[in-house]
Amino acid sequence: MLVLVDQDGVLADFESGFHAAWAARHPEAPRIPVSERRTFRVVDDYPPEWRDRVRAVCSAKGFFRSLAPIPGALQALRAMLAEGIDVRICTAPLDAYEHCVLEKYQWIEDHLGHEFTRRVVMTKDKTLVHGDWLVDDNPIIVGSRTPAWRHAIYDAPYNRGATQATRMTWADWRQVLANG
Amino acid sequence: MLVLVDQDGVLADFESGFHAAWAARHPEAPRIPVSERRTFRVVDDYPPEWRDRVRAVCSAKGFFRSLAPIPGALQALRAMLAEGIDVRICTAPLDAYEHCVLEKYQWIEDHLGHEFTRRVVMTKDKTLVHGDWLVDDNPIIVGSRTPAWRHAIYDAPYNRGATQATRMTWADWRQVLANG
Repeated sequence: MLVLVDQDGVLADFESGFHAAWAARHPEAPRIPVSERRTFRVVDDYPPEWRDRVRAVCSAKGFFRSLAPIPGALQALRAMLAEGIDVRICTAPLDAYEHCVLEKYQWIEDHLGHEFTRRVVMTKDKTLVHGDWLVDDNPIIVGSRTPAWRHAIYDAPYNRGATQATRMTWADWRQVLANG
Repeated sequence: MLVLVDQDGVLADFESGFHAAWAARHPEAPRIPVSERRTFRVVDDYPPEWRDRVRAVCSAKGFFRSLAPIPGALQALRAMLAEGIDVRICTAPLDAYEHCVLEKYQWIEDHLGHEFTRRVVMTKDKTLVHGDWLVDDNPIIVGSRTPAWRHAIYDAPYNRGATQATRMTWADWRQVLANG
């Protein structure tokens, strides 16, 4: 079995990291708690006049590398490898890639070790990548072809409107990926 | 048609760039002209006592971004898109990824524009990526599965021992990829 695992929102806690960085950088700004987030991209939940500042916080030096791991994620990836499940981290960089591409690799080395950086597949188009499963918090994966993988939505407040795919968390990954 | 195109040795002239950087950094060192290179990885053609220095030149800041385009490569990629052929740049980072991952994106933006950076698939395992063709100067592509693509070897002095695959250059890509 080959499992592709998305990075932000599945391994790295993008939402909490954004919320903290946003409050620190713009204490006067409106703030949306993670539990009240409703759109996949955080920028779309904020009023138009704040969106450039939302983008600037996400593309700033140090943002991606400083994200905390989502509880259970690192243990689950190590367990998969120990049990003979092949795992790749399948992640899309921001269009503003300057800090993001390197920091995604550094985050993986920081939390999973240097060897694990060899398991990265960095692509805007995840439909091109072969796998049995893609674990991703994005409820709608758009790309150029019909993917080989099945999509397991990693559960989050902002993707609960989606009903079309299998839903999982790191608490129940074994039963979900085994039973489909 | 979807064509995966490797970056170093196919789009970016890694060999000439290395040769120049090596001569500048270590004028006293042995030097192997590109025409006399015989192994896929440049480090393997140098005596063991020089290999750490070869690796250091390749992983130094600025090395990847400064590589010159291989003649005809940029024009071929633009022609493919204009003719309705889907193109992705499928490239493996060095293990010493610190400068390499960002500079590969920057090189693409410098020479093909920002939009083209959305076409990058960065992976150590190219067998996972779907495509009709992979154009790559590496004569032996190792990975975890039997790939969907056919391999067109981009001709270079160091891969002429390989006879098992289709061989091409930017001078004859149309006939090679059309006829297989």
